[in-house]
Amino acid sequence: MRLLVANANTTQAITDACAAAARAAASAGTEIIAATPRFGPAVIASRAENVIAGHALLELLAGHAGRVDACLLAVSHDTALEAAKQMMPCPVIGMTEAACLTACLHGGRFGLVTFGGVETYRELVARHGLSARLAALAGVDATPPEAVADPEGVGAKVLAAVEGLAAQGAESVVLAGAALAGFDRRLQARAPVALLDGMACGVRMAEMMVALGLPRPRAGSYAPCSGRASLGLSPALAALLAR
Amino acid sequence: MRLLVANANTTQAITDACAAAARAAASAGTEIIAATPRFGPAVIASRAENVIAGHALLELLAGHAGRVDACLLAVSHDTALEAAKQMMPCPVIGMTEAACLTACLHGGRFGLVTFGGVETYRELVARHGLSARLAALAGVDATPPEAVADPEGVGAKVLAAVEGLAAQGAESVVLAGAALAGFDRRLQARAPVALLDGMACGVRMAEMMVALGLPRPRAGSYAPCSGRASLGLSPALAALLAR
Amino acid sequence: MRLLVANANTTQAITDACAAAARAAASAGTEIIAATPRFGPAVIASRAENVIAGHALLELLAGHAGRVDACLLAVSHDTALEAAKQMMPCPVIGMTEAACLTACLHGGRFGLVTFGGVETYRELVARHGLSARLAALAGVDATPPEAVADPEGVGAKVLAAVEGLAAQGAESVVLAGAALAGFDRRLQARAPVALLDGMACGVRMAEMMVALGLPRPRAGSYAPCSGRASLGLSPALAALLAR
Amino acid sequence: MRLLVANANTTQAITDACAAAARAAASAGTEIIAATPRFGPAVIASRAENVIAGHALLELLAGHAGRVDACLLAVSHDTALEAAKQMMPCPVIGMTEAACLTACLHGGRFGLVTFGGVETYRELVARHGLSARLAALAGVDATPPEAVADPEGVGAKVLAAVEGLAAQGAESVVLAGAALAGFDRRLQARAPVALLDGMACGVRMAEMMVALGLPRPRAGSYAPCSGRASLGLSPALAALLAR
Amino acid sequence: MRLLVANANTTQAITDACAAAARAAASAGTEIIAATPRFGPAVIASRAENVIAGHALLELLAGHAGRVDACLLAVSHDTALEAAKQMMPCPVIGMTEAACLTACLHGGRFGLVTFGGVETYRELVARHGLSARLAALAGVDATPPEAVADPEGVGAKVLAAVEGLAAQGAESVVLAGAALAGFDRRLQARAPVALLDGMACGVRMAEMMVALGLPRPRAGSYAPCSGRASLGLSPALAALLAR
Amino acid sequence: MRLLVANANTTQAITDACAAAARAAASAGTEIIAATPRFGPAVIASRAENVIAGHALLELLAGHAGRVDACLLAVSHDTALEAAKQMMPCPVIGMTEAACLTACLHGGRFGLVTFGGVETYRELVARHGLSARLAALAGVDATPPEAVADPEGVGAKVLAAVEGLAAQGAESVVLAGAALAGFDRRLQARAPVALLDGMACGVRMAEMMVALGLPRPRAGSYAPCSGRASLGLSPALAALLAR
Repeated sequence: MRLLVANANTTQAITDACAAAARAAASAGTEIIAATPRFGPAVIASRAENVIAGHALLELLAGHAGRVDACLLAVSHDTALEAAKQMMPCPVIGMTEAACLTACLHGGRFGLVTFGGVETYRELVARHGLSARLAALAGVDATPPEAVADPEGVGAKVLAAVEGLAAQGAESVVLAGAALAGFDRRLQARAPVALLDGMACGVRMAEMMVALGLPRPRAGSYAPCSGRASLGLSPALAALLAR
Repeated sequence: MRLLVANANTTQAITDACAAAARAAASAGTEIIAATPRFGPAVIASRAENVIAGHALLELLAGHAGRVDACLLAVSHDTALEAAKQMMPCPVIGMTEAACLTACLHGGRFGLVTFGGVETYRELVARHGLSARLAALAGVDATPPEAVADPEGVGAKVLAAVEGLAAQGAESVVLAGAALAGFDRRLQARAPVALLDGMACGVRMAEMMVALGLPRPRAGSYAPCSGRASLGLSPALAALLAR
Repeated sequence: MRLLVANANTTQAITDACAAAARAAASAGTEIIAATPRFGPAVIASRAENVIAGHALLELLAGHAGRVDACLLAVSHDTALEAAKQMMPCPVIGMTEAACLTACLHGGRFGLVTFGGVETYRELVARHGLSARLAALAGVDATPPEAVADPEGVGAKVLAAVEGLAAQGAESVVLAGAALAGFDRRLQARAPVALLDGMACGVRMAEMMVALGLPRPRAGSYAPCSGRASLGLSPALAALLAR
Repeated sequence: MRLLVANANTTQAITDACAAAARAAASAGTEIIAATPRFGPAVIASRAENVIAGHALLELLAGHAGRVDACLLAVSHDTALEAAKQMMPCPVIGMTEAACLTACLHGGRFGLVTFGGVETYRELVARHGLSARLAALAGVDATPPEAVADPEGVGAKVLAAVEGLAAQGAESVVLAGAALAGFDRRLQARAPVALLDGMACGVRMAEMMVALGLPRPRAGSYAPCSGRASLGLSPALAALLAR
Repeated sequence: MRLLVANANTTQAITDACAAAARAAASAGTEIIAATPRFGPAVIASRAENVIAGHALLELLAGHAGRVDACLLAVSHDTALEAAKQMMPCPVIGMTEAACLTACLHGGRFGLVTFGGVETYRELVARHGLSARLAALAGVDATPPEAVADPEGVGAKVLAAVEGLAAQGAESVVLAGAALAGFDRRLQARAPVALLDGMACGVRMAEMMVALGLPRPRAGSYAPCSGRASLGLSPALAALLAR
Repeated sequence: MRLLVANANTTQAITDACAAAARAAASAGTEIIAATPRFGPAVIASRAENVIAGHALLELLAGHAGRVDACLLAVSHDTALEAAKQMMPCPVIGMTEAACLTACLHGGRFGLVTFGGVETYRELVARHGLSARLAALAGVDATPPEAVADPEGVGAKVLAAVEGLAAQGAESVVLAGAALAGFDRRLQARAPVALLDGMACGVRMAEMMVALGLPRPRAGSYAPCSGRASLGLSPALAALLAR
C-alpha cells in the first residue's frame, strides 16, 4: 500500500524526519510518500498558524487524491483532520489521534506531554471525544532547538513529566510534537509506563484501516463533497470539492 | 466604532445581506465595514470547505487589522473563530457564538435550528463548551433557494421545528445559517420562545466588548503571535504572524 | 434606559459602591437606579444566607417591575437569578454570570478568584452550564476588611492567584465578590491575562439585552407567572405572581 | 426519634397529607412532626415561587432547630435543601433527593415523572450531580385537581409515562410532586419497574442518617453559620445565623 | 431481618472483622450472617483478582438466595455489585456504594481515601455515575500490615490525606478498603469533615431498602434471570440462572 | 504471530464461528487459535452471566499466557477486558472496544445496534470513556435463532435500525453481538454509513498492537500481578497472579 505522510508546515527537514520515522515504523509492504505544503507557517505554534496550515494541508492532500491508499497527517495538532477524512477518498489518520486511540487500546487513562503550552492539546483531546480517558497534560519547559542541542538534559525533563503524569493516573503517555520524536525510544526503558509516538501508531493504524476497507458514508457530515463551487483554489482541491 | 463584518465565503450577495442586517442591528455610533474573502468556497456546506474558508477569513481579517475596532464573523460555523481572536488586535465575535451566549443570558437551555444536517453545529456548541446549555438541534428539510422561493412554506417548517425544540426543553432557539436570516422577525410573533439571530446578537456583543476594552493576554494560547515565519501568505497575514 | 442595580444584602454601603461602579461602567444614556433589600443578611457568606437573600431580592425587584428597563443583580452569587429572569418583565443579569459569559466571548477557559471558599462558586459555574469553560478556581486567604486596610498586600495575593490560574490554563480571570471590586483596574497592568469585573460586564450586557429587545417566552420554565396564590408576601411581589 | 416533615408551601392540606404519608412510612420509633410555613406560595409551580419558599422553609426549620432529630423537606423541588443541610444542627433530607438516591441504590439509571414541565427537575437532578444516572424525564399532561377527580384516567397516563421511561432505559421511576402521592401503590403492580415515592424514601433515609450520627463539618461550605448579622428575620432564623 | 455480609476474598479473618463491624452498626432487629467465598484471591489488589472474586461472590450469594433479606458486599471495590443486584431476590448493597451515597445525602462533594493506587476507585465512582460529586481521591502510602503495626503513624497519614481532600473541596470523606476499618472512629474528632465507613453506611442502607420493600423489575437490565443454561457452576448459582 | 480468539461463553459453535470470522479477517502471517472456557454460561445475556464469564475467560487466557502474541476477546460485552489487559503478558483486545475505536478513527460519532436491550452496551461505551462519541443505540426486536431462520427479515430490521441511527447523527454503526456476525457484509451495500464488525476490527487492531510492541507498565493499575495468594483457582491462573 501507498501511505502519504503529509506534513502541515513548510519545513522540508521536518517532512524528511517524519518520512524517516514512518518508514522505520511501517510494514514491509507499505510505501511511504512524503509531502510538504506549498504555503503556510514554517512551524505551527499558534491557533492562527494552525488554521492557515489546514488549508495548506487540504491542498496538499487533494493533489494526492486517488494516488495513495491512506494519509497520515504528520502534525501533532491533527490539523484539519475531520475535513480531510470527509474530503479524501481514502482513510486519513492524525498522528495524535492515533497515539490517543492506541493509548485507549493499551488500557486506562493516558497522559500527554509536549513542549510549551498544553491548552490546545486539551482542546484536541476534547475534540476527539476522549476527555474521559485523559489523566493529565504536562508542558515541558524546553524548545525544539534545546531538544536537539541537549537531548540528555531535555530528556530528563521529559522523563520527570512522564513520571508526574503517571503519578496523576496516566497508564501511558502520548508524546505530542515533532520535537519529541525519538524520545520514546530514548526514554522508554526508564519510564514507568508506555510512551506513545504518533508516527509509529499512525502508520500502523493507517495500515489497519486500509486492510479493513470500510466504505465512505453516503450520508452525514462525512459524506464526500459534490458539486461545490469555489474560487481561487488549486485545481486539484477545487476538483475534489466540485466532482 | 468601526465594526468589520467579515463573510467567510466568496459570495458577494451574502456579504451584502449580512452588512444590511448588521446595519439594521447596530447602535447609532457603529460604522459597518463589510468584506468578502479573496478565495474559497462559494458557500460553506462541508467540513473541507469550512477549513479552506478559515484561511481565507484570516487573510481577510489581517487586511483590516488596526483599522477596525472589532470584527464580527458573518458565518454560522464560527469559522476560525479562536484563531481570529488570538491573531487580531481587537475583539472578534462569531455570530453563532454570539447567539448562543445571548441565549444563555436570556435563560435556560437553548435549541438550534438550521437547514440540513446538524452534526457540525452540535460539535460547534461543544467546541464553545456550551453542550450543557443545549436542549436539542433540529435540521429543517429545506434549501436556501426554497427559503427564497417559498418563505411561507419554509417558515412553517421552521416554526414547527422551533415548537419541537421548545417541547424538548429549549427556552429560546438560535437560528443558524445565513438562509435563516430574517426568519426571526417573520416568525417571532407565532413562536413560543425567543428566536435569536446571530447577526443582531453579534453586532451588540461586539459593541459591548469594545466598550469593555479588555486587554489582550500576555500569556496562554490566546497571546498574540510574534516572530513567526511563513511562506506564500498575503503580506498582511504574514506580517501579523511575524511582528 | 433605566437599569436597576439590585444589591442582595442589606448593607447600604455595598449598594452605594455597586451603584458607583455601575455608573462608571455605563453608557451615556443609561440611568442607574440602586436599591437595597428590606430584610436579610448583612453580607452573604453561607448557603443559608444566600437562600434568604433570594426572597429579599425578588421582593426588591418586584417593587421596580415595570419601572426599569433591566436589572443587574449586584451579588457575586447570582442569587435567585433564574427566578428573577422568569418573574421580571425585563432582562435580568447576574454579575458573575455576566463576567463568565464575557470571559467566554474573550476566548478560552477562564479562572475565578474570590476571598475564602470556592465550592459555591464551582457550583455556580456548573449551574450556568459553563463547567467546560472553567480552568480552575482560587480562594485567596484574605477578608474584605483586610482588602480595605492593606490593598497592596491583598493585591499581591490576588495577583499571585491570578498567575496561578493562568498557569492552570485560564486565559482570563473572573473576580468574584464585592470585596474584589476595583482590583481589576489596580492589577490589570501586572496580570498576564484579562481580569473581569462583574459590574462592568453586567452593565454592558444589560444594555445589550435591552437593545436586542427579546420577547418573554410564552412556554417553558421561564414563562411569566400567572394566577399564583400566596400568603404574607409584599404586595408588589404577590401581585407579580398573581397577575 | 423526632422527624420534622416540613412543607414548603402554605397549604395546610398538603402538610396534612405529607404527614400522613410520612407516618405510614415511618418505623415504630419515629415520631412525625409536621409544619407549614408562615408565608409564601400556596403551591410551588414556578422558579420565583420556589425561591420565595426557600426563605419560608428555612424560617420554619429554624423554629424547630434543636427540637427534632432530622428534617424531611416535603417538597418535590428539594427547595433550599443545601442551605438547610448547612444551617440545621441535624440531618436534612429532600424528598426527591431521597427518591433519586434510592433509585441509585436499587440499580441502574432512573426515570422521573411529574405533572407538567420537566426542565426544573432536570436541573434538580443535575444539581444533585446525578445526571449520569438519569435515563429520561416525562411530564404527564394532567393537573393535581384532575388527579383527584379522575385517578383512574390520570393513573393510566402516569403508567404510560412510566412504560415510556422504562423503554428509554429507566430501571426505576421517581414520582415527583405531591399530586403523585399514592400513585406508586396504585400503579406498582402494573408497572414494569419499581416506582419510588419521595416521602417513603425520605423518611427511611432520615432514620438512617440519624442512626449513623455523622458529625457536622468544621470546614467547607457546609460548616455551620456563626456570627452572621441580619435584618428583619424571624428571631429563630436570625439566632441560627448569629450563634 | 437477616443480613448477609458477604466477603469477596477468601480470608476468614477479614470476614470476621467485617461481621463484627456490621453487628456494631446494625439495628437491634438485624441478624448478621457472615460468609466467605469458597475460592478466589486472598485479598483483592488488582483488576484480575477483582474479576475472579466476582464469580466467587455470586456463587456465595446464590447459596443464600431466599434465606436472607438483604446482602451487603463487604468489599470496597463493590465487586460484581450490579450483577448481584440483578441476580438476587433481595436488595444487595455495596459498601463503597453505600458510603458514597451517604456522602451525597450528607451534602456537597466527597473525597475518597485508600491505601495505594486510586485509579480503580476513580473508575468505581464513575461506574456509579457519581463523578460529579467526587472532589478528589487520595492514596495513602501505607500497607494494611503497617496499619495494624503502627496505627498512630498510619492514622496521621490518613488524617493528612483527609485534610488535603477537604482543602480540595471534599465536604466528607469515604474511607475505602478493609484496612481503613475503624479509622473513622479513631480520627473523626480531629478531622475537619465527616468520615464515612462503608460497613456502617451499608448496614443501615440495607435495613432501609428492606423496609421500603421495592419490587424487582419485570423489564430492563436488572430483571431476574430465567431459563439460562450454564456449565460447571455451583448448583445454587446454576439454579438461580435457570429458574 | 499467534492470536488467541477467546470465547467467553461455553458454546463451542460460537467459538468456531468466531474463529472462522477471525481467520477471514486476519493477515497472512496471523495464526488464529480459538478456545472455549471450561465453565460458565452457554450464552451471556445478563449481568450475572457476564460476571461469571469474566472468571472463566481469565482462566482460559491464563492457560495460554506466554504461548500467544495477543488475545482477542470474542464477546461483545468486552467481558473482563481491563483485567485481562492487566494480567496477560501480551496485548488483549475486546471486540466491541475494537469496533468503537475503529469507528472513532473512521470519523464522527457512532451508533451501536444489537438484539434486545441496549443499557449494558451504553454502560460499556461509558466504561471505555467514549460516551462523547456515541450518537445513539438501537435494540432490534429479534433473537439469534430468528436471525438464523429469517436472515432477510431480520436484516431488514437491522437496516432500519442503522438508518435510524444515521438519522440521529451516527456516521458509522457498530454491530454488537455474535448474532449480528456477517450482517455487515450482507447489509453494507444498502447502509448509508459504514458497518463495523468487532471481529474484523479486533483482529486488525491486535496485529497492530503486536507490531507496535509496547512495553507493559511498571506502575499503575495495569501493572502485572506479583506475589498474589489465591485459593481454588486453576494452576495457570493462580500462577499468573503469584509470579
